[in-house]
Amino acid sequence: MKRIIRVNTRTGEVIQTAPTEEDLKWGGRGFIARTLLNEVPPTCEPLGRYNKLIISLGLFADTNLSTAGRLSIGGKSPLTGGVKECNVGGNAGKRLGRIGVKALILEDIPEKDTTRILYVSADEVKLIDAPHLKGKLVDETFEELRKEFGERKGFICIGPAGEMKLYAAGIALTDDRGEQVRYAARGGLGAVMGSKGIKAIVIDDSKTVEPDYYDAELLNSTVKEVVKILQEDPKSQNRRKYGTLDILELANQAGLLPTRNFSSGQFELAANFSGPRVADVIKERGGCGKSGTACVPGCTIMCSNVFPDKEGKKIVASLQYESVVLLGPNCGIGDLDDVAELNHLCNQVGVDTIECGAAIGVAMEAGVINFGDAEGAKDIVKQIGQGTYLGRIIGNGAEFTGRAFGVRRVPAVKGQAMPAYDPRGLKGNGVLYATSTMGADHTAGNAFETLKTVNPLGKEKQVYNSRQLQIRAALIDSLGVCLFIRPAFIKNRELLSNLYKGRYGFDMSFEEIKRTGVEVLEMERRFNELAGVSEKIKRMPEFMREEPLPPNNTVFDISQEELEEIWNIEMNPETF
Amino acid sequence: MKRIIRVNTRTGEVIQTAPTEEDLKWGGRGFIARTLLNEVPPTCEPLGRYNKLIISLGLFADTNLSTAGRLSIGGKSPLTGGVKECNVGGNAGKRLGRIGVKALILEDIPEKDTTRILYVSADEVKLIDAPHLKGKLVDETFEELRKEFGERKGFICIGPAGEMKLYAAGIALTDDRGEQVRYAARGGLGAVMGSKGIKAIVIDDSKTVEPDYYDAELLNSTVKEVVKILQEDPKSQNRRKYGTLDILELANQAGLLPTRNFSSGQFELAANFSGPRVADVIKERGGCGKSGTACVPGCTIMCSNVFPDKEGKKIVASLQYESVVLLGPNCGIGDLDDVAELNHLCNQVGVDTIECGAAIGVAMEAGVINFGDAEGAKDIVKQIGQGTYLGRIIGNGAEFTGRAFGVRRVPAVKGQAMPAYDPRGLKGNGVLYATSTMGADHTAGNAFETLKTVNPLGKEKQVYNSRQLQIRAALIDSLGVCLFIRPAFIKNRELLSNLYKGRYGFDMSFEEIKRTGVEVLEMERRFNELAGVSEKIKRMPEFMREEPLPPNNTVFDISQEELEEIWNIEMNPETF
Repeated sequence: MKRIIRVNTRTGEVIQTAPTEEDLKWGGRGFIARTLLNEVPPTCEPLGRYNKLIISLGLFADTNLSTAGRLSIGGKSPLTGGVKECNVGGNAGKRLGRIGVKALILEDIPEKDTTRILYVSADEVKLIDAPHLKGKLVDETFEELRKEFGERKGFICIGPAGEMKLYAAGIALTDDRGEQVRYAARGGLGAVMGSKGIKAIVIDDSKTVEPDYYDAELLNSTVKEVVKILQEDPKSQNRRKYGTLDILELANQAGLLPTRNFSSGQFELAANFSGPRVADVIKERGGCGKSGTACVPGCTIMCSNVFPDKEGKKIVASLQYESVVLLGPNCGIGDLDDVAELNHLCNQVGVDTIECGAAIGVAMEAGVINFGDAEGAKDIVKQIGQGTYLGRIIGNGAEFTGRAFGVRRVPAVKGQAMPAYDPRGLKGNGVLYATSTMGADHTAGNAFETLKTVNPLGKEKQVYNSRQLQIRAALIDSLGVCLFIRPAFIKNRELLSNLYKGRYGFDMSFEEIKRTGVEVLEMERRFNELAGVSEKIKRMPEFMREEPLPPNNTVFDISQEELEEIWNIEMNPETF
Repeated sequence: MKRIIRVNTRTGEVIQTAPTEEDLKWGGRGFIARTLLNEVPPTCEPLGRYNKLIISLGLFADTNLSTAGRLSIGGKSPLTGGVKECNVGGNAGKRLGRIGVKALILEDIPEKDTTRILYVSADEVKLIDAPHLKGKLVDETFEELRKEFGERKGFICIGPAGEMKLYAAGIALTDDRGEQVRYAARGGLGAVMGSKGIKAIVIDDSKTVEPDYYDAELLNSTVKEVVKILQEDPKSQNRRKYGTLDILELANQAGLLPTRNFSSGQFELAANFSGPRVADVIKERGGCGKSGTACVPGCTIMCSNVFPDKEGKKIVASLQYESVVLLGPNCGIGDLDDVAELNHLCNQVGVDTIECGAAIGVAMEAGVINFGDAEGAKDIVKQIGQGTYLGRIIGNGAEFTGRAFGVRRVPAVKGQAMPAYDPRGLKGNGVLYATSTMGADHTAGNAFETLKTVNPLGKEKQVYNSRQLQIRAALIDSLGVCLFIRPAFIKNRELLSNLYKGRYGFDMSFEEIKRTGVEVLEMERRFNELAGVSEKIKRMPEFMREEPLPPNNTVFDISQEELEEIWNIEMNPETF
């Protein structure tokens, strides 16, 4: 990768530089952390002139490694006030790699409201006025872009929610056929993009740049070895069959499934959303329905799907665990089609399904609509796109909604809604939400994976375990790959050294590589402390420590002191 | 004063204790700061179980000192997340003093929503269920209380905004005739009272407690001396004639009058609101109109008024500078009757006029209604009381409104709206807003008083000057008197020592007394730092440093580094 592109959205100035030696060591989440710490004042207004939207390729995003091509998108989060990195699929990442872009950094904000497209190719970077895209839904926008710029381009855009700078707004990506909508969903980065007046980014890789692999042979053989392990891995096989919903039944059985605004850990209609059931429905309905699709080109895990209606017409692609739980059980909604439709609506107006589902749950608790009122929920999501007063409340997320309606049971930490694991039923994720540099975000070190090895209701080992998971997540998110690639490196951690050597010529031991995960967390933590959003100050919501969660009737009881100790725990150098 | 009363709003338990020696040294704001630091976890949720609503008499609130009887009401502020103390008139303070109450502390929150009255007399403290008061406007509530408990009682209540726990909600007090509505307005303390399920507090002083003055003769002679000085003081005389609006013309001439959401420092219709004009209108209209009324019984400054409509019927009492500016010029509204009506509506639904006026200004900038649309603004305030979606947005204050509508020009610091002095036109108040423990709050050390001695547009001396003013404000707010008493102590600072001696028998030099102001600030600052709301983290909004303010075309340019130095500046021991 040869270029870091900076676009000043006020002046229109474009600066392209070659990455320094030090730049090359950092990709994805790590590059974002470093850029934020070096360039963005931690106390700046997230939608103001001094925040930056950083789109960064992971270290191996430009290789054929399975799942590679995922993009990291980050900046100072409007929701948390701290660091944010979202890791997202779609077709833009690989294309950015092909035209030699390591990172794309949007700076400053325009003097007046604008609606512009940023166009990037091997030869050109330019801003194009696009008033015709103003207010357009996400699918409409992608369709329009495809018409204007041709089918096989990389596309990134925001919906009306991002344009309105609502804090639950995400950034959408798609695939070559416009079939899926993938989201850099969390933290309100869509609002940051909106604040910069950029409605869409088009990556044109008609002309590509030669890859600069250090040892293509070593890289290729390592890539093959990774695929081999993944193909033999039973978890990965299940993901292909059942998608991320594979875990839903287990989460419900364990009593950690957020239900009716986090008032219960079990939902009586959970079976409607189980991985096998959804796969069956997709199969039965046929039409455009598909299980086992890839979110980035070349992924061999293929945990995505296309979920069709009864006529076989697509409702949404892809239907995933977090979205289903927050929009379904957490809102008391038990019908699969309703939830798929809600998910689709969120994708269209441009909001994070987790934040939006949590916000609707809070509004339901306040009596705005009743739990279970699917039509009411759909109407609310549509209202986000229309910018009604209620839409603007919900579109600003769960905490904002709680404040509007005087609700105390708001499942959020550092301003950001909790994903689909109640911290009273999976205490490891409570540790994660409370201490993660990302706020309540399962992707930063999901303890669900250790459900069987660390007692989810006990206090023991939770902080240590979360620390290790967070380090690993910080590392993986820096590589441009998906967290689901982890079985390969768990089985053979030396593969990582080979990848670094093959791609860059770096000689790095596994321990050195893992250490970069620690360093990423340290940079992020430093930024957050300067921004005033450490776990010392922004704590687990009080109701989580007071209200026992049925059916296990446990509260979150890991002490604040123990939580704060997490930063003093050493990395385990042995395991991935 | 003999009692500190604690009421647990969850269990109903009442604990009454005699103040310790150390307790006796602290009154009003100082007592609140100390109680917060000792008893309230700084990171607690402001509307949760661990915050406390602290109603504290100042050290001389139970004497006949002019302006004494003002109450301090405080707690952790929902808006700022830090310390909050509001100093308020009305008839409750003196009555609390007469029944020997030094402080009244509301603790915890009820398990379910409740609407209760707290009744306090010399012999009894009890919670009374009052579902009939639920949702009642402030005047309705006072009228109902007067019917139930008799005319000559002390009354404190919240409006629907406080019941809904909206962050702009204040706490209302009145006088014996129910003529005036006085507000402990700022910081969202009405929401704290609402969270505790207390709609109203009734102070019954039918039976009183003997005063325990150490040297009643010395106290009385000092009180007389204070009155004498105030009666001869020209500023105090003007306040009686023209009320707090006396300064409006000067503020407009100086170009610091917040106009159209802080986009200008001069308003073309400012003359409509000048002190002399308002006094003339009151005189011409007659009826119940009055200038020069007192906000606490026995005040000799009497800067309040009763503002009548054309038929001589009361619109609002009292019409004051801050409310007029934020609801008038800041909303582009130039008609005096419109502004009086808006002020009245805010008083009725129970919101801070400053926060509400600033929020409406932000909404006007977003195009929700146009600048100058008085009927639209009235409708919005009514909607706060009705709890509509728009009402809930505005009722949560300026910053919340800015976030709902994606507006960047939000005149707030630490989450709280700026009062009626643009910090670009009066840089001393910029220093105050940025550094005060109270967030943007003029009462914490208003530099308007030094408009002629410190160049308001220059950088020199501003930080030093603000430091001295903040120390003095912290001291005065601890005494149970009004800031307007200051001419007496400026002229003869030894009067303070005599008051301490006469009331309590304390032998304290002026310097020792002044030092307590420093100590109050230090306690507050410590609490705020632990709560994560220091000036290091929560800064002056960026637009104040970027957008020049007409007509002087200055920006706020005192550096962050200089602002942070304020805590290292020594108290000037010579001057009051």
